[in-house]
Amino acid sequence: MKTKFKVEDGDIISKSFQTLQNNIINEFLKYEETDFHIDTWKRPEGGGGKTCVLSKGCTFDKVGVNFSDINGTSLPPAATSNRPELNGMKYRAMGVSVVTHPKNPFVPTVHLNVRFFMAFDENTEPLWWFGGGFDMTPFYPFLEDVVLWHESAQKICVLDKKNYYDDFKKQCDDYFYLKHRNEPRGVGGIFFDNLNNHKLADCHDFVIKVGECFYTTYSKILKKRKDLPYSEKHKSFQLFRRGRYVEFNLVYDRGTLFGLQSNGRTESILMSLPPSVNWIYNYPVEDGSEESVLYNDYLMAKDWLKEKN
Amino acid sequence: MKTKFKVEDGDIISKSFQTLQNNIINEFLKYEETDFHIDTWKRPEGGGGKTCVLSKGCTFDKVGVNFSDINGTSLPPAATSNRPELNGMKYRAMGVSVVTHPKNPFVPTVHLNVRFFMAFDENTEPLWWFGGGFDMTPFYPFLEDVVLWHESAQKICVLDKKNYYDDFKKQCDDYFYLKHRNEPRGVGGIFFDNLNNHKLADCHDFVIKVGECFYTTYSKILKKRKDLPYSEKHKSFQLFRRGRYVEFNLVYDRGTLFGLQSNGRTESILMSLPPSVNWIYNYPVEDGSEESVLYNDYLMAKDWLKEKN
Repeated sequence: MKTKFKVEDGDIISKSFQTLQNNIINEFLKYEETDFHIDTWKRPEGGGGKTCVLSKGCTFDKVGVNFSDINGTSLPPAATSNRPELNGMKYRAMGVSVVTHPKNPFVPTVHLNVRFFMAFDENTEPLWWFGGGFDMTPFYPFLEDVVLWHESAQKICVLDKKNYYDDFKKQCDDYFYLKHRNEPRGVGGIFFDNLNNHKLADCHDFVIKVGECFYTTYSKILKKRKDLPYSEKHKSFQLFRRGRYVEFNLVYDRGTLFGLQSNGRTESILMSLPPSVNWIYNYPVEDGSEESVLYNDYLMAKDWLKEKN
Repeated sequence: MKTKFKVEDGDIISKSFQTLQNNIINEFLKYEETDFHIDTWKRPEGGGGKTCVLSKGCTFDKVGVNFSDINGTSLPPAATSNRPELNGMKYRAMGVSVVTHPKNPFVPTVHLNVRFFMAFDENTEPLWWFGGGFDMTPFYPFLEDVVLWHESAQKICVLDKKNYYDDFKKQCDDYFYLKHRNEPRGVGGIFFDNLNNHKLADCHDFVIKVGECFYTTYSKILKKRKDLPYSEKHKSFQLFRRGRYVEFNLVYDRGTLFGLQSNGRTESILMSLPPSVNWIYNYPVEDGSEESVLYNDYLMAKDWLKEKN
């Protein structure tokens, strides 16, 4: 059952997404002396956004916290590939996207996206759905952090008393996977799309909870790991592994492709790319090295909640 | 009119591609103290290749000179998107690919690809075609180098007394274009595909000439520019601009997509990616700066032969 609503009802969700953006920025600023650079922009075809990026901080090499709320006359393919009936409909699409590139290689990179879509034409009721999720990409993982990440996700993955964690966790593992490397992007989290099988207000509450869970959990990990001492070798491995992040975002990520196809603001979309990256041919990872732990124990789909002991 | 031939006739072309690979390596080694790292590999589904990469040299931060000769039972989509009749045919595909990432920002990055495809099934004559080209991506361009590049291309772009330079130059400008940046990858060169409208032997001679023109011309530019003094600012601009190269290769390049889709050897395919890259949000390029010259005078389709004075 779809809730009836008007296009302007998107305004309420837009406001709450902007609040989420501010909350995330304020949380990150607790660990920073540098300020965010803020660009408010309009899109010629309709809508706009606020791009916030912090570079060369003491905790983050780069972190982007984006909000956008755009509309257009024809949904681009990246949004409709699984739902051809939406092809060419008018739309409003809004979302908050976060990617962190921490300085310290013991702090994982994390990503959040929450989004809300409306599609409509003259003849039909507006359609709406939410999507989003968060996932973690460690360089030198701590089991404790990975378990915390997934436990926190499990706790908030509730809609009408039904827990969606297993479902959304699997979707995350399936989605954040680099086929050409036979490698997951990291240790996952949760991911969902086309969420509209509950009341609009409940789905809305849920995605906001997803956003809040993301930054409060990450904040705990930051606090614990950001001042750990690290060597040049650790940093070099981090720069190398960031290459995988670029490969995923440019080859597979539907959000990135949607942005580029919808004539989005390229600098905002590609703000997710790391500040510095190294591609090293056949990077040597020795058996039993600190670096091998990531490959041997973490880069695989696992039931992380069972790993806790 | 297609020339009749057998699948094994590909062996002759394969040999000449391997000779080209060696010639390119020997030319580059004139400027290096470091050796190429060489990996000879087999592909489980059929065929193999030789990947040669030099890293952290005195002239090149990284340069890859790849040869591969693979075969399979079903042509992947990246090879057949314009020719649906080839879909699912058996194939043999071979090629030489080169990408240079010079240390000195006054030396341009250049790229070469020459390739030969055969597609066949039980019922039809084998089909064959060549493709390839070369293009240049300068950071701090010299008009003299760009004109030399295009003049050299024009001279060798001859098949049966017909000059194809204008045609192949336009194909290059069209192909090496980053839509999401509204920006060409560089100053172009030549690019062609589905070349089979002349005798096989003549097409073969032509693509070998393309390969030879590539490295002999680049060698002249290397000699002139590789020892020019440069500053940290120059280097930083080079690292930033290399990001565009990554964006093109991962989002648009059909060769890369063909490789990844045909279950190719990922380390060899992505060897084209730069050793180090920086993504900087809204990189400031000031009016009248050395960096602005690239944007204002070079990143646009131009008749370079007319720019000579």
